[in-house]
Amino acid sequence: MANECANFGADLHLELRGPRLRAGLMDALREAVRTGRLEAGTRLPSSRTLAADLGMARNTVADAYAELVAEGWLTARQGSGTVVARRAEPRTAVRPPPVSSPVLSPTRPAAPAHNLRAGTPDLASFPRAEWLKAYRRALTDAPNEAFGYGDSRGRIELRTALADYLARARGVHARPERIVICAGFVHGLLLMGQVLRNRGVRNVAVESYGLGLHAGLLTGAGLGIPVLPFDERGTRVEELSDPGEYGEGEALVSAGAVLMTAAHQFPLGGALPPDRRAAVVDWARASGGFVLEDDYDGEFRYDRQPVGALQGLDPERVVYLGTASKSLAPGLRLAWMVLPESLAGEVAATKGAVDWTSSAPDQLAFAEFLRSGAYDRHVRAMRLRYRRRRDQLVAAVAAHSPDTRVSGIAAGLHAVLALPPGTEQAVLRSAAWHGLAVQGVNQFRRPTVPPTLDGLVVGYATPPDSAWNSALQSLCRVLP
Amino acid sequence: MANECANFGADLHLELRGPRLRAGLMDALREAVRTGRLEAGTRLPSSRTLAADLGMARNTVADAYAELVAEGWLTARQGSGTVVARRAEPRTAVRPPPVSSPVLSPTRPAAPAHNLRAGTPDLASFPRAEWLKAYRRALTDAPNEAFGYGDSRGRIELRTALADYLARARGVHARPERIVICAGFVHGLLLMGQVLRNRGVRNVAVESYGLGLHAGLLTGAGLGIPVLPFDERGTRVEELSDPGEYGEGEALVSAGAVLMTAAHQFPLGGALPPDRRAAVVDWARASGGFVLEDDYDGEFRYDRQPVGALQGLDPERVVYLGTASKSLAPGLRLAWMVLPESLAGEVAATKGAVDWTSSAPDQLAFAEFLRSGAYDRHVRAMRLRYRRRRDQLVAAVAAHSPDTRVSGIAAGLHAVLALPPGTEQAVLRSAAWHGLAVQGVNQFRRPTVPPTLDGLVVGYATPPDSAWNSALQSLCRVLP
Repeated sequence: MANECANFGADLHLELRGPRLRAGLMDALREAVRTGRLEAGTRLPSSRTLAADLGMARNTVADAYAELVAEGWLTARQGSGTVVARRAEPRTAVRPPPVSSPVLSPTRPAAPAHNLRAGTPDLASFPRAEWLKAYRRALTDAPNEAFGYGDSRGRIELRTALADYLARARGVHARPERIVICAGFVHGLLLMGQVLRNRGVRNVAVESYGLGLHAGLLTGAGLGIPVLPFDERGTRVEELSDPGEYGEGEALVSAGAVLMTAAHQFPLGGALPPDRRAAVVDWARASGGFVLEDDYDGEFRYDRQPVGALQGLDPERVVYLGTASKSLAPGLRLAWMVLPESLAGEVAATKGAVDWTSSAPDQLAFAEFLRSGAYDRHVRAMRLRYRRRRDQLVAAVAAHSPDTRVSGIAAGLHAVLALPPGTEQAVLRSAAWHGLAVQGVNQFRRPTVPPTLDGLVVGYATPPDSAWNSALQSLCRVLP
Repeated sequence: MANECANFGADLHLELRGPRLRAGLMDALREAVRTGRLEAGTRLPSSRTLAADLGMARNTVADAYAELVAEGWLTARQGSGTVVARRAEPRTAVRPPPVSSPVLSPTRPAAPAHNLRAGTPDLASFPRAEWLKAYRRALTDAPNEAFGYGDSRGRIELRTALADYLARARGVHARPERIVICAGFVHGLLLMGQVLRNRGVRNVAVESYGLGLHAGLLTGAGLGIPVLPFDERGTRVEELSDPGEYGEGEALVSAGAVLMTAAHQFPLGGALPPDRRAAVVDWARASGGFVLEDDYDGEFRYDRQPVGALQGLDPERVVYLGTASKSLAPGLRLAWMVLPESLAGEVAATKGAVDWTSSAPDQLAFAEFLRSGAYDRHVRAMRLRYRRRRDQLVAAVAAHSPDTRVSGIAAGLHAVLALPPGTEQAVLRSAAWHGLAVQGVNQFRRPTVPPTLDGLVVGYATPPDSAWNSALQSLCRVLP
């Protein structure tokens, strides 16, 4: 057995090049189970041992184990470590694999057949022809200097077009000189982390649920990330301590800024109620702090008028961060920040210190895409498509699993399906077994937050139209 | 006078938003002199005082002063600080400005009329039609997943096309899995700085002359930058200390890596001779160090076969960094690293930690541009054009200033014109007065290197064809 594990580690090591260490490890483990090299019941080395063998962080291995347990490949037994799961035969009869695909296992496919993970729009809907048209016009009209080293804030043409659009569509108080183009939300958050740290800010408060990647960027910048509690009305921003409250502030959260998905909490889906919107801006004014508003899907509102950006309440205390990753495509790497006057110079200087920007032709193309109305048309079309899917999701869940409550459905590209307490892991295992990639709310819970909710985060925008119905059926199959 | 300065500082402060603080300050100072708000003979506040008023680093102000002195706007007097220069009337008669351009000063234009600064290709030559063709094909053929969140190393299509091209054109041992696409050379250097620092490397040696931006990126990553000395044969890599030489190594340079422009020293222009190429690779092997090879203009060789990349000597000890910024355009923000196996995973993971890449359509377009042969055709056309300009430069200098030696002319986009000792500043002042933007070699000298050379760094690729002849004439006018 020790020998088996040692060999196994060595094999993995050979295949583990590349940026996605955890994904690579998971692939290698799945492959070893699938091919029978790791038999059912085989005990795996401890995460500490395997991490040392592979030269990886222990958490990476532990996370990979945990996800494979959730997917049903492995079983974690109290006191006896992690073992390869004894797996039932697949429920449905499977044809023997064609001779030309010896790599495919007869028991189940390597990649999930259905993808309802949140965070990606329908990539098949990228408006190639319209984008190409804008790109052609932009490239033809571009002044020669556009091909040179540019302003690190980004092209003025794009900043001007965005200022118009954001004021009109999101109620953002934007002026071109306050806008900085960046290569995605994470790039913007990284810059903000550096700028805040350089100003002496020690803590940036985060919500109880959110993306670990974002929290990691902040801690990587040397910032603490105290967590704001959460109740049925959303994030309890009133827990942010006012500067005058030191005496009784022990239970309160002390921070120089707060990162929020105010218009549509990710992933739980609610909009911050008006009194709390006002309260968090009041806190920023009183304390000299900043609100970092992650408006990742602000374009997609279905049942009511869009909630305007928080930034509109006080452009001098709210940093607005928007992105084309949900409305167009993540592959474009285009995002933007609208900054308070007191931060605009520092953020631009921090970005400019390494002098990189998005490609100038892309920026000019996006400016043309906005100006020509193509962006509005695309967003409108996608809004209809996603709304239809959302309605189908709600109807299907009501029909197949009447007790399952669907929430966070007024906006965005995902919904939350509440599950009976303690069942999330079982449902996720079942989903993995059915070849359905989907996440649980607890995958977004900050580590210090006690688990109180069970649920699925269903990204209904993710599949292409052709795969949507089967993905939905697959989801219904795993619901209680 | 104190009042004048105070007002002046306040005005500047209002206009100094944006990333280029020094450039903004210089513009504001030029404007103030041009409009007469600062009269000839006016004494400026000390750099320390003005820096404090404006909330800028003192060096930024001191550098701006120094450049304006070099441009002839200001005069630095021993013991009496910096004063606004008493300027002669322009030599040539100037028509009064048209009524519709009240902003233009009648005495001299705000921006230099001629630009021979090094580092930028002829932006007017960007192959718009060919690039658009590649972009259209790439966008049409792209799989849907290309629009999603991608591999942080970059698109496999581009890494494959680059591996072929670099092996063929630059003798680089490249495999796609060792290539990481980045948004410009500086992005690659930033990643390398982080990775080396995380490995415990303390120093990265640099050449005696180079870009301050690059040195600043390394120091910003927490690395020391000991400087390698320079002689008539180039960088003295033999000064790098071997690990076994601790006893007698006091005068030697201790470093975990060295940043080099081996194929074409920037800005001095020589190629590192073969024995030193071998020596620096030997040092890396013996010490476990790395050579960071900045191959910024490897495509442009005129009088002989190209010098292959240093990386070909030992792909496990040399990190190759290339860019499309000189061969195509900086505005595309496309560059690449070819990494030793021992670093590939770390660099990709460091880049992937913030998950940003260049735009996927751009990467696919560049892959298509390479595969279709359009890149080779473009480089060949530009090589002919730049070579012709180089020949014209050499001939013009020989005719107008027979004693001026031109060096570094076998390759690249710039040449060095040697000047009599002590005359560089005067020639730069004269150039500024004639509306010619050009740099001196001492602007690239590391601060700790004693000044021993005077010369102009002439970027003959920079102007468009239509402006080249007048730029050359303007250059000849200022030569001794």
